[in-house]
Amino acid sequence: MIKVGIVGGTGYTGVELLRLLAHHRDVSVEAITSRSEAGMKVCDMYPNLRGHYDNLTFSEPEAKRLGAMDAVFFATPHGVAHALAGELLAQGTRVIDLSADFRLRDVDEWAHWYDQPHGAPELLQEAVYGLPEMHRERIKSARLIAVPGCYPTAVQLGYLPLLEAGLIDPTQLIADCKSGVTGAGRGAKVPSLLAEASESMKAYGASGHRHLPEIRQGLKDIAGSDTGLTFVPHLTPMIRGIHATLYSQLTAEPEDLQALFEARYANEPFVDVLPAGSHPETRSVKGTNTCRLAVHRPGNGNTVVVLSVIDNLVKGASGQAIQTLNLMFGLDERRGLDAPAVMP
Amino acid sequence: MIKVGIVGGTGYTGVELLRLLAHHRDVSVEAITSRSEAGMKVCDMYPNLRGHYDNLTFSEPEAKRLGAMDAVFFATPHGVAHALAGELLAQGTRVIDLSADFRLRDVDEWAHWYDQPHGAPELLQEAVYGLPEMHRERIKSARLIAVPGCYPTAVQLGYLPLLEAGLIDPTQLIADCKSGVTGAGRGAKVPSLLAEASESMKAYGASGHRHLPEIRQGLKDIAGSDTGLTFVPHLTPMIRGIHATLYSQLTAEPEDLQALFEARYANEPFVDVLPAGSHPETRSVKGTNTCRLAVHRPGNGNTVVVLSVIDNLVKGASGQAIQTLNLMFGLDERRGLDAPAVMP
Amino acid sequence: MIKVGIVGGTGYTGVELLRLLAHHRDVSVEAITSRSEAGMKVCDMYPNLRGHYDNLTFSEPEAKRLGAMDAVFFATPHGVAHALAGELLAQGTRVIDLSADFRLRDVDEWAHWYDQPHGAPELLQEAVYGLPEMHRERIKSARLIAVPGCYPTAVQLGYLPLLEAGLIDPTQLIADCKSGVTGAGRGAKVPSLLAEASESMKAYGASGHRHLPEIRQGLKDIAGSDTGLTFVPHLTPMIRGIHATLYSQLTAEPEDLQALFEARYANEPFVDVLPAGSHPETRSVKGTNTCRLAVHRPGNGNTVVVLSVIDNLVKGASGQAIQTLNLMFGLDERRGLDAPAVMP
Amino acid sequence: MIKVGIVGGTGYTGVELLRLLAHHRDVSVEAITSRSEAGMKVCDMYPNLRGHYDNLTFSEPEAKRLGAMDAVFFATPHGVAHALAGELLAQGTRVIDLSADFRLRDVDEWAHWYDQPHGAPELLQEAVYGLPEMHRERIKSARLIAVPGCYPTAVQLGYLPLLEAGLIDPTQLIADCKSGVTGAGRGAKVPSLLAEASESMKAYGASGHRHLPEIRQGLKDIAGSDTGLTFVPHLTPMIRGIHATLYSQLTAEPEDLQALFEARYANEPFVDVLPAGSHPETRSVKGTNTCRLAVHRPGNGNTVVVLSVIDNLVKGASGQAIQTLNLMFGLDERRGLDAPAVMP
Repeated sequence: MIKVGIVGGTGYTGVELLRLLAHHRDVSVEAITSRSEAGMKVCDMYPNLRGHYDNLTFSEPEAKRLGAMDAVFFATPHGVAHALAGELLAQGTRVIDLSADFRLRDVDEWAHWYDQPHGAPELLQEAVYGLPEMHRERIKSARLIAVPGCYPTAVQLGYLPLLEAGLIDPTQLIADCKSGVTGAGRGAKVPSLLAEASESMKAYGASGHRHLPEIRQGLKDIAGSDTGLTFVPHLTPMIRGIHATLYSQLTAEPEDLQALFEARYANEPFVDVLPAGSHPETRSVKGTNTCRLAVHRPGNGNTVVVLSVIDNLVKGASGQAIQTLNLMFGLDERRGLDAPAVMP
Repeated sequence: MIKVGIVGGTGYTGVELLRLLAHHRDVSVEAITSRSEAGMKVCDMYPNLRGHYDNLTFSEPEAKRLGAMDAVFFATPHGVAHALAGELLAQGTRVIDLSADFRLRDVDEWAHWYDQPHGAPELLQEAVYGLPEMHRERIKSARLIAVPGCYPTAVQLGYLPLLEAGLIDPTQLIADCKSGVTGAGRGAKVPSLLAEASESMKAYGASGHRHLPEIRQGLKDIAGSDTGLTFVPHLTPMIRGIHATLYSQLTAEPEDLQALFEARYANEPFVDVLPAGSHPETRSVKGTNTCRLAVHRPGNGNTVVVLSVIDNLVKGASGQAIQTLNLMFGLDERRGLDAPAVMP
Repeated sequence: MIKVGIVGGTGYTGVELLRLLAHHRDVSVEAITSRSEAGMKVCDMYPNLRGHYDNLTFSEPEAKRLGAMDAVFFATPHGVAHALAGELLAQGTRVIDLSADFRLRDVDEWAHWYDQPHGAPELLQEAVYGLPEMHRERIKSARLIAVPGCYPTAVQLGYLPLLEAGLIDPTQLIADCKSGVTGAGRGAKVPSLLAEASESMKAYGASGHRHLPEIRQGLKDIAGSDTGLTFVPHLTPMIRGIHATLYSQLTAEPEDLQALFEARYANEPFVDVLPAGSHPETRSVKGTNTCRLAVHRPGNGNTVVVLSVIDNLVKGASGQAIQTLNLMFGLDERRGLDAPAVMP
Repeated sequence: MIKVGIVGGTGYTGVELLRLLAHHRDVSVEAITSRSEAGMKVCDMYPNLRGHYDNLTFSEPEAKRLGAMDAVFFATPHGVAHALAGELLAQGTRVIDLSADFRLRDVDEWAHWYDQPHGAPELLQEAVYGLPEMHRERIKSARLIAVPGCYPTAVQLGYLPLLEAGLIDPTQLIADCKSGVTGAGRGAKVPSLLAEASESMKAYGASGHRHLPEIRQGLKDIAGSDTGLTFVPHLTPMIRGIHATLYSQLTAEPEDLQALFEARYANEPFVDVLPAGSHPETRSVKGTNTCRLAVHRPGNGNTVVVLSVIDNLVKGASGQAIQTLNLMFGLDERRGLDAPAVMP
């Protein structure tokens, strides 16, 4: 049994880890922390977990107790993992960080977007970006994982086959992304109220969003060169789900885009390329770790459109984190992640 | 491996059986029928099932093929099970009917509410009403199960402890029920459109609804005498879930209502009595077979209010059907039904 | 032109006053206050008002400036009108209070439910309960109006014809009410987030809610004697709307319930009795000051079911407030309140 | 009083015409037709109209009766206006067609996208494309108006200032559009059910959509040359609203994009350019004829992003139709179209 702890367990990615791990037969959640709710039973906050974690209680985050775990997930705002990760690694505990703390390799860029100095630059060297479809082998031997953001996951998986094949102009990418409101977290903010966010659609961060440098870094890793990306996220009136609509310009006449995508992801357990002509729905992946993709070439012209959907809390966060844990501990990558979506 | 077939697999209870059975380790779905979609792969209709039932295809309903199964679920409109059940039973196949065909014992009442003669009165004698919390032992040895309706399940489980204890006036019951739109099925009807049903609330069938005689029959079985019930269902702008708010009048001063409910359901795996003062949310049971209950006595007066929530497609249909199958085949009642709700 | 001010203009009832008054040809909004947003243009907070109030800016609440108005609306939390109303009345300004400050005549009951002493008991004598269908004549000459709460409006209008006619047992009333989330106000609270409140249904306050004493007082005024009421509110996944389902027991054989309701409301511009057998939808009154009613007698039995729908922010708050203003200033009661609902 | 008729009054654009015209002081709706509902009162289908059109009844479409009107709106599927428009024009009745029948000038293209021959090519010459921001003067003297589609309206108004100024490459346009479900009409189709379309997001028609040729034609009229447009519509889980996110590439260094947009639309009553840095919400225009725009230039780079929101049933259909009627009959363009959006 792999003993794990969760730091920051009251947010949506925290409870999602609990939900998914409830049926992971090789993992036991031994600790979950929350400064604000210490002493409260997790079931009292999340009644869906009654009967599954009846004796699990939020505790204060203590490095010593967490250091007794085999692995610790950080489901925290940025900055927290910076402060604790080193201490845990020193005790031999593997760290899987769902926050943005170790995603950017450039500390200046991190400081720019997060408006504070990077708190653990000495750990960046060994942090592995936890996108298995790109870095599976490195993940297997990693001690510290930076779990990708939700938008970056959907966007990178969509562009990956095209960029690897060198078929598109990497300087002309446009990612129009739509996210459910859980992407904004569980904080009590007026714009996230049902009365404000439902029955409406709006863009945000059109002039710049924290996920932009992460996506750019990831796409550069794939393409081998700098990319030019326009990224516009939109708040969508639904709880979960990201729909990324990805535009790019062909630089060469491709043989068969459908075949290219199918071949690239043939052995990926969590990427599902739909038949030609399909339009994936976010609900088809709700609660699951699957990314569903479709590739279109409207009017047989120069523009390629990739449609990429994920559940922002699963493949975009907690599910991908568990996928990396499975890899790190030599388990079947799909362990605990194989239930179909609830639909409708 | 228990071989099962599903008749009428294109509706919401059909796909919900598939979803739940995808991880039932003792059951294999060998056939699924649909006259209208015969030849179509189930994954093409329900992309959430891709990767789970890639080779399962809708077929015409043939009694011979279905008769080779150990059990057959009917997820059909009323009347279909009447026509086929006898033939299947004769071949030794057990029948679990999710429709209304065998729920009412009185054929005249059935004919009145369903506007056609009862098609299989000779089978009524052995049909067992599939509410395990009432009829567990009879279900274990049954060949033909009438799975309760969604409203009847939520209402009966809420009143059951009070009626068994003889604490309330059985002639003064009021059940105000709210259901998500999947309760109306997958038929293409204008009132079920998102544009019509969202951002609104309305009652329907206030002067009479087909579930009324079923609930009355069930409550009479519990109370031992005729009951007087007013039942008003409401269409609620959400996909799944039933919230039953159940009013009754005390006839005796009770000792401790909370303790009464907790004791009655102490050994029930799928009924969860919340702590005193709670208000269950339908989302806490979404996708699960659990019924969550809370009991209130406002102002310490004469009126008892029970709040009862279920997922109409699980405990109100397909999950309960699987629960009865587990009982009929000697399995752990919870097999395949133990994932927590996706929340948020 | 009637000059009006709005105290507490950032909440949902405040902006709703602005929306409705935008086309009230006899009213000019001259001042709107907000301590937290003083200096902000209302259009910057509410872009739907761009082009209508381009020069209106939130200001600090000053009694002197407000005292120059003909009338002032309080769209504030409880306690604020207590502090300011007296001073405004002394300056000859009429006060229309949308909060709970002057709804209960019993100061002890007020103190009990609002957990603080009543702040202006000397004004209670002249406060008029602003339900035109009950108190139209008194409203016309009032200086201080207590605008009814949203639930109390829907419930009283539903029971009124039955209680006035003495047809039902006033001690056996059950009001099962469903409200959209704007009923909880614009405060940033986790349970009001889209991610928490959508796709779910739950009761709250089942053991006691602040609107209970107000409804009881109102029903007693109608019935002429104490009433016994069980009131259970529910949070419904929609923005606006209240659906009250009202149960009562007949004490005499009525002649014709439909005719009774139609006759009682024949001259009421904002109460619409639907044809027999109807089920009103909340969306049919969205954005309007109308209450739509239907009356049922299931199975021709002893129980009467009244279905009553309003928009909680209009007939349940700001619209009713304007209706009382129209009456106080001798205008057509419907002025500014006659646009049909946006549907779908 | 301008006497108008509505052909095809049971759909969403039909009822929206009725809602908006209820308070148009110069227009009287004298006839409304529906083959399927002839004889039904409009209030029985649309209870929000009770009290406004109590005596209006759906009738069979008769050219003679319609020909007695000053103007007739067609709120019909394509093909109907082809058959009737000529006859009405011959009787001196002006025709405002909300369908696609007269939008495309090229009859072959029309036949290609609508899969049937064009039914009235002889009328194309005089049909005026009813986008007042482009064709105001021609609309004033028109007898036959082709009201633009919903997507085309949002897209053209967003690109218009940039194309007119010659600042962007017209061959590199990408319009990523999100629409509420009323865009699909009131037909009873499974994908439009609340249970299917809510809590999900998906693209459709990525490889080709009927609005594409209309947008291309309109953009060409603006740009003066052929344009290259990629258009991907998405189904969004809300009732009303279109959010168009419009990408283009600068070909020259612009002076001030914000000033350009503000100047272009300074005198347009229904186009509202938001302050720099804004993100318009669809709910801010719900029920209104306004288009709200914001222009962004992310990272001060080469890509311009325009955000354009409208209500698909108002500025995208019925409101724009009334705007053209106002122009045709010499009225203030805003008549009947000036209520602010209901928000929240």
